Amino acid sequence: MTSDDLDILRALSDAAAKAILPHFRTSMDVQDKRLKGVFDPVTVADRAAEQAMRSVIAERFPDDGVLGEEFGRTEGKSGSKRLWVLDPIDGTRGFICGLPTWGVLAGLLNAGEPQLGMMHQPYVGETFVGDGQTSLLLRGEEKHKLKASACATIAEARLATTSPALFSTEQKKAYDALEKSSRMVRYGTDCYAYALLAAGHIDLVVEAGLNAYDIMPLVPIIEGAGGVVTTWTGEPASNGGAILAASTPALHQAAMAMLSA
Amino acid sequence: MTSDDLDILRALSDAAAKAILPHFRTSMDVQDKRLKGVFDPVTVADRAAEQAMRSVIAERFPDDGVLGEEFGRTEGKSGSKRLWVLDPIDGTRGFICGLPTWGVLAGLLNAGEPQLGMMHQPYVGETFVGDGQTSLLLRGEEKHKLKASACATIAEARLATTSPALFSTEQKKAYDALEKSSRMVRYGTDCYAYALLAAGHIDLVVEAGLNAYDIMPLVPIIEGAGGVVTTWTGEPASNGGAILAASTPALHQAAMAMLSA
Repeated sequence: MTSDDLDILRALSDAAAKAILPHFRTSMDVQDKRLKGVFDPVTVADRAAEQAMRSVIAERFPDDGVLGEEFGRTEGKSGSKRLWVLDPIDGTRGFICGLPTWGVLAGLLNAGEPQLGMMHQPYVGETFVGDGQTSLLLRGEEKHKLKASACATIAEARLATTSPALFSTEQKKAYDALEKSSRMVRYGTDCYAYALLAAGHIDLVVEAGLNAYDIMPLVPIIEGAGGVVTTWTGEPASNGGAILAASTPALHQAAMAMLSA
Repeated sequence: MTSDDLDILRALSDAAAKAILPHFRTSMDVQDKRLKGVFDPVTVADRAAEQAMRSVIAERFPDDGVLGEEFGRTEGKSGSKRLWVLDPIDGTRGFICGLPTWGVLAGLLNAGEPQLGMMHQPYVGETFVGDGQTSLLLRGEEKHKLKASACATIAEARLATTSPALFSTEQKKAYDALEKSSRMVRYGTDCYAYALLAAGHIDLVVEAGLNAYDIMPLVPIIEGAGGVVTTWTGEPASNGGAILAASTPALHQAAMAMLSA
């Protein structure tokens, strides 16, 4: 990871944190934009943070495009192949409940390929970054290289998912069989699950119904730590959908076989 | 809350943090003591932290009894009515997965009545304390008084539970109806749910199968912030079992009616 990469990711995380933290654990004017019947809270903080990150990008890389959860897609200058993907608060339910489990996501696609990604938790004060080759956990002056676990079997796997309610009836059958075969499961994880898979503490993450901005920024972190992340059918994960992340290729194969059964 | 109370709780949280943090997010020798078929990981950190807290108590209050998750019950001197209740790492699954959602719990019963309680998260660096009259969030030099929300109806309630798999078949039916009626639900919360109910960010917590040490230390925090916590049938919560915590008496009544239906 180059110092330029680290520099832009730090600028984005600092801008987002400054916009979000004054609103965390305060009484908020939570707007309820009901999306497909699911409660999807959008906070003032969410919007302020995306605007802050868009300003950083516009100043440093005025030609680049931006795709954000709150304000949609802004095309880059003609000929630009670079697209920033932003989710200012991934895990808004956790945020609303005051939990320290949400994260600021920012990623960079280059000609459609994941190139750089970040998950930042400003209340805890830690940032996971990756460029597909290397991944790091940054905390204060500390910098730790991340390495996914060597877990190769579902029976040994620590599985995480945000909620078993993410899945369709068909998906749920396959997911339930996988969960039952795994060593343990943890719910309520949002973006942290992918970051902690990269860090070697979770072996398997299975979710569905994700948007591009929910997962793209996490792809370079997972891959940079040696993990594998695709859709349930093995397609690139960056567009979202039903997502499967695993700490090793063997575990990924085994889980994909169960999920497509 | 007296400065003596704050002093002992700080001593306990410092001792536990010092014992636990060197083991957080490292490769751990996780022992698997299977309890009723449920995966119940016990770590080196868990045992070291309970021993550290027991040492603090033995030095300051040699006559007091101690009940801990790891080392069971140690009777106090004859005539002593004081019993410390310790759960060194509540949320061991979260701990193993590297999440910042576990907590150190310590509480004091006096003649069977909850008198003092603490939930400490050393990685995040925050501590929730309460004495049944007042509750506080301590973070660095910050000290915030806690107040549970004014939420009075299930339809408006932010509900939390560690996992819907906590419940028996009968309990699950009642729980599912409650969840469906609530505004939103968050899983994977462990002790944080009760602390954040006291802080006004969660309105309702419903769990089952808790031990005394899982819940007793949280009772003075919830009650000190104006919340209500009992079993599903309205009995005192300090002995564990099926637990219901609510931010207001009205919400508690409404939820208890649904859970006993």
